[in-house]
Parts: sequence; structure tokens; C-alpha cells
Amino acid sequence: MAATPADVKEYPNSYVFVIDMPGLKSGDIKVQVEDDNVLTISGERKRDEEKEGAKYVRMERRVGKFMRKFVLPENANTDSISAVCQDGVLTVTVEKLPPPEPKKPKTVEVKIA
Amino acid sequence: MAATPADVKEYPNSYVFVIDMPGLKSGDIKVQVEDDNVLTISGERKRDEEKEGAKYVRMERRVGKFMRKFVLPENANTDSISAVCQDGVLTVTVEKLPPPEPKKPKTVEVKIA
Repeated sequence: MAATPADVKEYPNSYVFVIDMPGLKSGDIKVQVEDDNVLTISGERKRDEEKEGAKYVRMERRVGKFMRKFVLPENANTDSISAVCQDGVLTVTVEKLPPPEPKKPKTVEVKIA
Repeated sequence: MAATPADVKEYPNSYVFVIDMPGLKSGDIKVQVEDDNVLTISGERKRDEEKEGAKYVRMERRVGKFMRKFVLPENANTDSISAVCQDGVLTVTVEKLPPPEPKKPKTVEVKIA
């Protein structure tokens, strides 16, 4: 599960990270911001505790720890991040900072001499 | 998503198929038995309808139709199959038929001649 796939979308007011995490619940996933601008998503998928008498005939699903890191653009507002996990898909929304206000032209009063 | 990973487990009384299906709801998945002994699981993952102004920066998550087929063992009871989808993981349980009853030894009464 080290290479769990992700989509990244940019909206006018936000960045959205969509990551497949089948079988994980909200409590199994950690969303953090490191070094002010690195969005780090990590967690662990464990194999189900087996009832007695179970025998694996086929084992394709990956388990273990995984991590994804994304460098956030300069205008990402790291104080405004939300994360939702539904149907095994995590969606992290990072709001954008408002663009800096354009500098108003300075008006110099022309005095009559 | 054509190659969505699956685990197959055998229990004393059942076979269990566990398949990753992140982002799919029960209604998107079809579980069928073909030719009396082929368990067929199919569905389709669609990309979310985009709000206006969305732009993909990265697109790793696969969408589209997928199908997995499993030949069931002879002792699978195709009349007793259940399927549950939770957190993007589908679990299909196929009960086993009871083993045929051992033939009782025939007793031949010995008559006194």
C-alpha cells in the first residue's frame, strides 16, 4: 500500500487531494503539515484478525504502512485544512490564501504654487 | 481499476472473497454466479462530477469498468452467498455445502438356517 494512488485538483479557492485508502477508517489515517508546506498523509492497513481455521488461498491486497507527501504551493493556507474519509477514499481540502491586495496607485496632491 | 486486488480465504464452513473497491458504494457493484460455478464481481468507478473551475494537477486513481472472476470449488453453495461493502472493501461470503453423509455400512441379517 506504499504507492496508494492519489489525484490532486485545483479549484479557484482551494487544493483538493483525493487518495484511495480502502479498508481504512478515519482513526487509522494521519494528516499533517511538515516544514510549513509539506502535506503528509500516513497510516497503516492491517490484515484482519483471523478467526481460527482460516487459510489464505490468494493474497493480493497489500497491507502495511504507507505515506504520501505533497509540497503545497505558496498560496496554500495551512491553517485551513479539512479531511474526510468515505468509502475508503480520503479527501483533504486545503484552502487558498486570498491573493495579496493590489497596491493602490499613490496619488500625490498637486498644490497650486 | 481492471486489476483491483483481492484476497481469498477458506474457512471450515465457507469461502470468503475480499476485494478493494475504494470509492464504490453497494449500488455500483454487481455480484453474480455464472455457469453455476463462476463468481463474477463487476462494477464501474466514475470520476467525480467536477464543479466548475476544477483543474487536475495529478491523476493517478484509475476509473472505469472492472471485473474479477473466481471459479468456485465443487462444494460451494451458490444458493448461499452474501456480500457486504464497507470502507471501500467488498466481502463476499460463499457457504460450503455440507459434506455428503458417509454411507452407513449395510447390515445383512444372518438368518439361522
